[in-house]
Amino acid sequence: MLSKNLIKLIHSLEMKKFRKEHNLFVAEGEKLVKDLLTSAVECEKIIATEQFAGMLQKFGIKDAVIVNEEELKKASFLRTPQGIIGLFKQKSTPLDPTVPQHELCLALDDVQDPGNLGTIVRIADWFGIKHIYCSNGTVDVYNPKTVQATMGAIARVEIHYVELPQFFREIDKSIPIYGTFLNGENIYEHKLSANGIIIMGNEGKGIGAKCEKEVSERLHIPNYPKGCETSESLNVSTATAIVCSEFRRRMS
Amino acid sequence: MLSKNLIKLIHSLEMKKFRKEHNLFVAEGEKLVKDLLTSAVECEKIIATEQFAGMLQKFGIKDAVIVNEEELKKASFLRTPQGIIGLFKQKSTPLDPTVPQHELCLALDDVQDPGNLGTIVRIADWFGIKHIYCSNGTVDVYNPKTVQATMGAIARVEIHYVELPQFFREIDKSIPIYGTFLNGENIYEHKLSANGIIIMGNEGKGIGAKCEKEVSERLHIPNYPKGCETSESLNVSTATAIVCSEFRRRMS
Repeated sequence: MLSKNLIKLIHSLEMKKFRKEHNLFVAEGEKLVKDLLTSAVECEKIIATEQFAGMLQKFGIKDAVIVNEEELKKASFLRTPQGIIGLFKQKSTPLDPTVPQHELCLALDDVQDPGNLGTIVRIADWFGIKHIYCSNGTVDVYNPKTVQATMGAIARVEIHYVELPQFFREIDKSIPIYGTFLNGENIYEHKLSANGIIIMGNEGKGIGAKCEKEVSERLHIPNYPKGCETSESLNVSTATAIVCSEFRRRMS
Repeated sequence: MLSKNLIKLIHSLEMKKFRKEHNLFVAEGEKLVKDLLTSAVECEKIIATEQFAGMLQKFGIKDAVIVNEEELKKASFLRTPQGIIGLFKQKSTPLDPTVPQHELCLALDDVQDPGNLGTIVRIADWFGIKHIYCSNGTVDVYNPKTVQATMGAIARVEIHYVELPQFFREIDKSIPIYGTFLNGENIYEHKLSANGIIIMGNEGKGIGAKCEKEVSERLHIPNYPKGCETSESLNVSTATAIVCSEFRRRMS
């Protein structure tokens, strides 16, 4: 039986303010909930239909709220609920400024669209990028739309919210900081490293002036054929995919 | 003054059935409308606020319906209307099966999400891919969400709806047909041509069996590090971006 209070709590978690207050977030669907249960993320509560009883037993979850489809619909954020809703504790990974010295990381300067952020987390996971540094103006990774768009990758990638320009100044000066610009150098020809940070910018404005000042390597994804009239830009998640693919290609 | 009939017509164009019946589609916002007015796409009607009067004059449009913000809101599909709405005639480009012999094309096998299709059209435009062959089960490119997501690229890329397997059998046997699969060959190492067709599959099911049979080159985007537990797949528009980038990199 799903209590009114629990429904109220879940609904409140659609808003960042209440997610912060309760330190919780919502994930829906078998794949996503499984990925989170397998990870170090702490599970607060599972609400699921009878069909997931076996799976929950496997994960040793004894206090799940078993509901029927109609009750689940009342709690779900999705137009087509997927039978299982998990409430999880937000992760708190300590910020270690030496990480980009040893591995490739991403930084997001005010990415606004929840779907874009989710897709970027999924791309990072695919390409073995374990840390994403988000500006404080970037959309909250625990936004339900973002969580769903990560398709489970949120369980494996660490997201840190920081004052980006300040963070860049704190890390070792020798660490390359890449950014993509319309007037950057051809990424296919530029030397790319196995460590450092790649900054991706806001959907409309790109990388802000304060972050741009900290960029050491200016890159550009060339369109084809060169100089042809085409779309003026690529979507930020599209550009992230191309850039990450090119970095990883060099290392394989 | 915006007539009730015109509002009714615009609203009806949210549905594919009525878009087909009227052979029209809706595009909103300055960038998108400008891109379409500059192209060969035929304009049926423009509804805009006073601030666009100068722009409309430049394009020689004399019969635009000038409205105030409130009236525009009644017609718009967007939560935040962008001041200008265009009604355009759907394109009808004849299908030429010799095109993939000379240039690189895309084929989409039942892509379902309007946003994904729009993003893919934008990617095609960026990389100079002028023809996309969509299976009849692919979402309609004139869906308002798709049109908006193309960011104007719809004006420059030709979209054909066809029975894909049959179309593949009609084109010259020497034309390479690429597809991405989990068990394909590493795309970074595989020979890629400057012509042919790249098939991208449905969001959940990938490339269907009937299209798979026609694939001559099986590719795979490797994750990193190899064999590591990560996201099981990439979003179809993300994968399209990576594949197109890799094809074009070889040609630059």
